[in-house]
Parts: sequence; C-alpha cells; structure tokens
Amino acid sequence: MKNILMTIEYDGSSFSGWQRQPEARTVQGELEKVLSQVCSTEIRINGTSRTDAGVHAYGQRASFKGEWSIPTDRIRIAANNLLAGGQSGLGSVGDVQITEIEDVPADFHARFNALGKTYIYKIRNCWEKDVFDRNYSYQITRKLDLAAMRLAARQMEGTHDFKCFQASGGKEMESTVRTISNLQILEDVLGEEVNPEGYQDRILTIEVTGDGFLYNMVRIITGTLVDVGTGRISHKKIPEIIQGKDRQRAGHTAPPQGLYLAEVYY
Amino acid sequence: MKNILMTIEYDGSSFSGWQRQPEARTVQGELEKVLSQVCSTEIRINGTSRTDAGVHAYGQRASFKGEWSIPTDRIRIAANNLLAGGQSGLGSVGDVQITEIEDVPADFHARFNALGKTYIYKIRNCWEKDVFDRNYSYQITRKLDLAAMRLAARQMEGTHDFKCFQASGGKEMESTVRTISNLQILEDVLGEEVNPEGYQDRILTIEVTGDGFLYNMVRIITGTLVDVGTGRISHKKIPEIIQGKDRQRAGHTAPPQGLYLAEVYY
Repeated sequence: MKNILMTIEYDGSSFSGWQRQPEARTVQGELEKVLSQVCSTEIRINGTSRTDAGVHAYGQRASFKGEWSIPTDRIRIAANNLLAGGQSGLGSVGDVQITEIEDVPADFHARFNALGKTYIYKIRNCWEKDVFDRNYSYQITRKLDLAAMRLAARQMEGTHDFKCFQASGGKEMESTVRTISNLQILEDVLGEEVNPEGYQDRILTIEVTGDGFLYNMVRIITGTLVDVGTGRISHKKIPEIIQGKDRQRAGHTAPPQGLYLAEVYY
Repeated sequence: MKNILMTIEYDGSSFSGWQRQPEARTVQGELEKVLSQVCSTEIRINGTSRTDAGVHAYGQRASFKGEWSIPTDRIRIAANNLLAGGQSGLGSVGDVQITEIEDVPADFHARFNALGKTYIYKIRNCWEKDVFDRNYSYQITRKLDLAAMRLAARQMEGTHDFKCFQASGGKEMESTVRTISNLQILEDVLGEEVNPEGYQDRILTIEVTGDGFLYNMVRIITGTLVDVGTGRISHKKIPEIIQGKDRQRAGHTAPPQGLYLAEVYY
C-alpha cells in the first residue's frame, strides 16, 4: 500500500471551495477525478484544510493511499497535464496544480499530522480599485491606520480561547483554545506619490501562523484588524473582545478572495 | 448634445470580447446597459478597439453622445458602482471600470480620431507554470532566445505591408500597410536562481506602438517572435516573411490572455 503526500497550489476563484460536493466544481473533486484516471483506481484524498469558495492556496497539502504501478513523480506530471486541459490550447494552465509530491510512511495523514499552518491575507489599500486584483485581494479605498492594526495584532498573538473569532455554522470544536505563534502585517508601498485621499497606495499582507484555526478564524481576525484600521474598533479593546468569547463583539468577516493557505508544517 | 470620452480598464477573462452581442456578456454590452441606466436614456458607445474574448485593457477608449442632466464625473462614479455590483459584497470590484471621463467637442469620435495605440503582450517564461497568472499571460516553460527575438522585432518596426500578420476572418482592410513606430521586448527577471532548465525565470513584455493594427496582428507578431525564440523561425527570415505577404509563412497566433490594450493616442 502506497501513501503519497502532495503540495497543491490553486486559484480558488472558480471553485466552490475545497471539499468534494456532488454537483459543484471543487478542488478535492477535480483532483480526485484526475488522480483516479492517472492511477487507474478510485482515489480519495485527505486535505489539510477545507478552504471556502474563493479562497486560494500556495501550499495546501493532501495525502492519499492505494496500490498502483505508476511512479510517484509521474503521477504529478500526468495529473497536472490533465488539470491543464491536456495539450489543447496554447500555453494553457489549470487553476489547480500539484507542485510537489512524495512518498510518506503508511501512518502519515495530511490533516492529523499537521503541526501548524500559515495563512496570508492580502489587503489592497489603494485609492483606486483594480479590476485585475478583484479575485485576489480585499480592496479597501479609505486609509487604514496601520500602526493601530499592528498594536491590535500583537494582542492576538499567543495562546487564547478564540471563540470570539469563530463563525457559527462550522463544525463545533471541542476546544476553541488555539495558539497564534506569529501575526504580522507587512506593508508594500506602491509608487512614491501620495494619492488624493492623502496616503500612499499599498498592499498590506497579514501573515498568521498557528497550531490550528477555527471556522473562518483568519477572515474574522482580518475583519477585526480592518475595523481597527478604520477606527470602528479601538485596538485597546482586543483583550476584552477575546475574553468576552462573543462573536458579536469582534469585527466583520473579511471576504474570501484575499485569503491564501500558504504553508503547512509537519 | 453632449459628447463624452471615457478611458476604460477591464479584465477580459469573463467577457466574450468588446463588441455587443445579443446573447453574450461583452464589455460594450455591460457598459451600455449601465450607462443607459445612469443617464436615463439609451446609450450606444463607440470603442476604439474591438478586443477579442480574453483580451484585457488598461486604457481602452470609448465615446458616446446624448442629452442628460447628470454631471460628467458623476456618470463615472455611478456607473462604476453599478459595474461593481452596487454596495453588495465586501470590497467588491467589477471586472470593468471607467478610470477617466471627460467632455469632448461634438465632432470627436473615439475610434476615427485615434492616431495610434500601444498594446502590451505578457509572456511568462518560467520553468514552472503559475495558476494565478493563467488568464493574464502566455506561459512558456522552455527557454526563449531573447536576443534573437529582439533582432526579429527590430525588423518589424517601420512602415510595411503587414498582410502576413493579418488573420483571415476579420474585416478585409482596403490597405494592409501600417507603421509600427516602436516594438520592444522588456525583460523582468524573477529572483536570482537559475531554474532546472538552465535559465532564470522571467516575464517578457512586448510593447508595440503603431498607427493601426490589422485583425489579430499583435497576437501573430507575438507568435512569430515566440517561434523565433524557440528556433522554429530564424530572425533572418523576417524581412522575407513580411515581403511574402502570406499569413502561412508567419508564426502562430499567440493566445488572447497575454494581450492588453494599453494606450490610445489622439
């Protein structure tokens, strides 16, 4: 019995999320279809994270078991070829591809063995919106107070009961205590001019690493940081919001298109 | 009677091209629908360039005439709001927006008055394909000979009969003589490492400016330059290909997703 671990990159724009669904195009569904064809046996894969519709990944992981004769790296090449629509179309590229593939011990499981993950959330804080970035960032045209957002982010780091950042509708977790080992906001200024709103156009990249995340947790953390940036929530209230364990007191849920599963740690 | 000139930006990925069609979503169709609503009268616009399905624009131009009371800049704001789906959806952005708008003299026409245009064509010449760039560039994984491509490009500059670069199927032009005033290939190297194919990953940007372009001319020029880059066509054959006036002797037609209408000159 072989056990294989893949690293997967996808543009979530045209997918109804990761998880297999009978009637919808999902990342898991597309991968299982193509891998079953390549391995000539029915393949079921276990992904590390069940990303929502519109959410992207640079480094999703998934593992699968079975018996087949095709060498491991050939699986990657053949599957990517099918995912790109075969040879048809000049320079055609799929919206999901396998970037790495390796054999792992029989008892390895992509989700249960994960020790932690890094997510990235991209905010385009520019005076003018960009049509080309509409599926790839959260576009906010008013100036965000980055210093206040960074103070707020610092208060979210560490081990806390993060119930306030858990969306309803997800699976109820036995414990809502998680550890955020790193939460930082990087700033890339675009150009040198000050825009008519009085600030420099920029991309803000929120990088968050933790041992696990509750349903919609990164998007609610981001929405809360944005609400701090616009002044709707004071950064001083963050400890109180966390202690309150009440979703209603945290900020809004940022939209899916700015979110990227960046890396999984084993 | 007012006459208004717009600059328009769009992501062509989800459009069946520029030109209005009864059953398909086109850029012209979407703009006319929204402008008619904003101006409370039926609007018909004249675009400078009838871009194909999948082709993008940073600076398409279009003009329209009529009578209405709404101030010109309010038209832009109201139309962009509707194009972005109104207020619904956090940070929502449309795939087409009006970036500039101005009143012009009554006899001005966006297409007939255009003196020239610049198109950009993006080639992603990297060892690994990128799912996020699949709708925005032509992805070529084998190394292209940039020096040969630049020699070929230089031979295409100037005033020539460009019949060899005209696709069949377009409107027959009375004359196929055009002037390319500038054709250059810019190189942006990504990172510092040499990839396993023995070259550095890079983006090649073809910039071409001319007084007018035949049907699919920029895509055929690009395909011919790529064929020079892969060695299929010698750069020394370019003058002969142009003089032959035979589409069959030129290179392939590069796919639409790498092409951007960048600027129109009046």
